[in-house]
Amino acid sequence: MRQVAIVGIGHSKFGRRTDVNLGELAFESIKQAVQDAGVEKKQIENVTVGSAGGWYEESLPAVIVNEYAGFDKVGTMRVEAACASGSAAVRSAYLSIASGEAEIALAVGLEKMTEVDTLTSVELMGRAGSYVWEFENYGMTFPAYYALHAVAHMKTFGTTEEDMARVAVKAHHYASMNPLAQFQKEITLEKALSSQVVSWPLKLYDACPISDGSAAVVLASEDAARKLSDTPIWIKGIGVSSDSANLSRRDGYVGLAATVDASRKAYALAKITPADLDVATCHDCFTIAEIMAYEDLGFCAKGDGPKLLRDGQTEIGGRIPVNVDGGLKAKGHPVGATGVSMMVEVSKQLRGEAGKHQVPVKHGNGLVHNVGGTGHYCYVTVLSRDQ
Amino acid sequence: MRQVAIVGIGHSKFGRRTDVNLGELAFESIKQAVQDAGVEKKQIENVTVGSAGGWYEESLPAVIVNEYAGFDKVGTMRVEAACASGSAAVRSAYLSIASGEAEIALAVGLEKMTEVDTLTSVELMGRAGSYVWEFENYGMTFPAYYALHAVAHMKTFGTTEEDMARVAVKAHHYASMNPLAQFQKEITLEKALSSQVVSWPLKLYDACPISDGSAAVVLASEDAARKLSDTPIWIKGIGVSSDSANLSRRDGYVGLAATVDASRKAYALAKITPADLDVATCHDCFTIAEIMAYEDLGFCAKGDGPKLLRDGQTEIGGRIPVNVDGGLKAKGHPVGATGVSMMVEVSKQLRGEAGKHQVPVKHGNGLVHNVGGTGHYCYVTVLSRDQ
Repeated sequence: MRQVAIVGIGHSKFGRRTDVNLGELAFESIKQAVQDAGVEKKQIENVTVGSAGGWYEESLPAVIVNEYAGFDKVGTMRVEAACASGSAAVRSAYLSIASGEAEIALAVGLEKMTEVDTLTSVELMGRAGSYVWEFENYGMTFPAYYALHAVAHMKTFGTTEEDMARVAVKAHHYASMNPLAQFQKEITLEKALSSQVVSWPLKLYDACPISDGSAAVVLASEDAARKLSDTPIWIKGIGVSSDSANLSRRDGYVGLAATVDASRKAYALAKITPADLDVATCHDCFTIAEIMAYEDLGFCAKGDGPKLLRDGQTEIGGRIPVNVDGGLKAKGHPVGATGVSMMVEVSKQLRGEAGKHQVPVKHGNGLVHNVGGTGHYCYVTVLSRDQ
Repeated sequence: MRQVAIVGIGHSKFGRRTDVNLGELAFESIKQAVQDAGVEKKQIENVTVGSAGGWYEESLPAVIVNEYAGFDKVGTMRVEAACASGSAAVRSAYLSIASGEAEIALAVGLEKMTEVDTLTSVELMGRAGSYVWEFENYGMTFPAYYALHAVAHMKTFGTTEEDMARVAVKAHHYASMNPLAQFQKEITLEKALSSQVVSWPLKLYDACPISDGSAAVVLASEDAARKLSDTPIWIKGIGVSSDSANLSRRDGYVGLAATVDASRKAYALAKITPADLDVATCHDCFTIAEIMAYEDLGFCAKGDGPKLLRDGQTEIGGRIPVNVDGGLKAKGHPVGATGVSMMVEVSKQLRGEAGKHQVPVKHGNGLVHNVGGTGHYCYVTVLSRDQ
C-alpha cells in the first residue's frame, strides 16, 4: 500500500450551532483544513463526507457540503457507520490515496443534531441499535444499552458509580482547556454523582451531549505530503470490525468485542503495541464506555479500567492520556464529526500543537477509537509522527 | 493500482417484495454472489453496503445485512450517493482491494422502498435534490426535475414525446426477457403515449417504478481472481463527478455535466472510447434521462440521441445496446441496488451468460452509468473481459 498522511486539519466549534446551516458548519472545518494543508481546492480529487444523517433535512449532505465549499466536479459520496461515520470517511479517503486513485483527498465529518427536538434525537439514536427487535419491541435506547454494560461491569469487577463519574470530571476538566469544546466548565465529582438518573446507574453527567459540529482532514500521498507539510501525520493502520446488532446475541457486556478485534488489527498493521502510544482518543459516549475502552484496547487488563483511571494514568503525564480534548463527553458528539475530530486532535498532539492540553510525545504514536452503535461497528486508527 | 476483478455476482428479484425483510432481501443476492465466486464467507474481508435509506426502519443497514448473512467481525460501512449508492459501494470495495488492504471484498446494493406509501416515497426522492431551496420553496419533485430536462431537450433539438415513449417500449421489451425484472410485459407506443401525465411531458410510462431489491458483487485482487474464476470481469476505470444541488445554478438542461465529466474520466482510466463498448447500462430513471445519457456518454453527438434510438442502434444488434436488462424503467429501481445491479448485468453480458438478452461481445468492454439525484453525483465504471 502507498503511504498516506494527514497534512491539513480543521475543526468547527462544537455545540448548539443554530447560527449556521449545514454547508456553513462543514465549511468552518473544511476552510481550516484546506488552508492548513496549503492546497488549492482544485487539487483535492475527492471528498468523502461522514454523516449518519436523519437530524437535518438534506438527504444528500455530500453535495450540499461540496457546493457550499466551492468544489467543482469533485468525486464524492457520503459514508455511514453510525457514530463511527467519521472514521469511515477517513478510511475512504485513505484508500483512495493508498490505492493510487488520488494524490490528495478530503474527509469531512459532519452532524447537525439540534435541528430536531431532544426526544426525536433519542429515537434516532435508539434506532441505531437493532430497530425492529430491540428498539420497537423492548424500547431500548442508548442510555439503556450502556446502562446494561455499566451494571455488568459493576457486578463483575466492582466498578462504582464514582469510578464512572471520575471519567466525566476528567472530560470536563480537559474540555475547559479546549475552546472548541461544547462544555467549558469543570465539574465536581459530587455534581456528577448527584445529577439526574437517566438510566441507572447512568446519570446526566455520564452521558455525552447532543451536538452540532464538523471536522475535516486533508490526506495526501507520500510524495504530496513531503511537498506540502513539515509535520505530516502518517496513517499507519486502520482496523475495522463489527458485531451483532442485537445485544441479546452478544457473548457478554463488560466490553465490546468489536473494539478488541479492530484494535488488534490496527496494532498489527501499525506494528505497535499499546505501550508505544503517547495519546488516545476513545469513544466515551457514556462514561462506562471509556472505562471499557481502556480494557478492550489493551491499555490495561480487563476489569482494571477503573484503577487505571483512579491512578491518573489516563491524564496528561500518565501512562496513556485519553480524551484530553474533553472527549465525546464534554467536547461534544456530533455523530458523523466525531471520528474526524479525533483524527484532528491526535494530529495536533503528535505535531505538538495542542496548546494547554498538550501531552508529552515520546514514541510519536496516537490512537483513534471510534465506535458505531453499541459496538456494532468499530474503527481503530493508528497515527504516527514518523513514517 | 492493483488490478481488481468481479468474480461473483448475485441479483434478487426486483419488485414489491413484501415477502422478505431487509436482511433477507440482501441475502438473496449475497448468497448467489458468494456461491458464484466460490469463496467462503470468512474469506471476505470487508462488506460495503450501498443504500440511500429512509424508506425502511433500520438506520444501520450494513450491520443488519452482515448479521443476517452470517458475516462475523467483518469490516463494514454503508455508502450513499443517492441513486448512485450502488456504484459508490463497488468503488469502495474496489479501492480496498486496489490499495492492498484486502484480497476479497463484497459490495451489496440494497433498497426496500415499498415499506412507505407512494407519497412519502415521492417526498423522500424529492429531498434528494436541494431540500431547503428547491423542494421546500418550489415543491420540486423528481418527475418535475426531469420534466424540465425533457422540455429543454424538446425545445432545443425537436425531441418528441414519441421519442421518449420509445425508450419505455424498448425497456419493457427487454424486461420481458429478464425474469428478475419488476415488469414482465411488453407495452406499445400507444399505451405509453396515452398513459397519465405525471409532470408534462413525462407520463406514467416515462418514469421508473418504486422498487425493492438487492444486488451483490464479490471483488478480488488479480491473484485471487485468477484462482477463483475462469471469467473474471476487470474493473478498468471508475470516473466520479458531481454538480450543483440546485438546478437553478446549472448551465443548461439538455444534459448532465456530471455524466460528461465522469465518463471522460472513466474512458481515460480504461484507455477506451465509446466505440470500444459492446454494451452499456445507463441511468434511465426517466425516459429522457436515457436519451441524454446517450449523448453525454458520447455514444452520439448532443441532440442525436432520439435518432440513435429510432435507428435501433441501442438495441441488441445495434452499435451500442443500452439497458437490455430492462433498465431502471422496467427492471425496477431500488435506489441503492441499481448501480450494483448494473455491474451484475454488464458482467453477465461480458461473460456471455445473459441468456435471452445477450448482446454480441466483440471488444469485451461494457459500461455502467449511475446517476445520483439529477446529476448531483455521477459514477461511470468501465468493465472488461480482458485484463
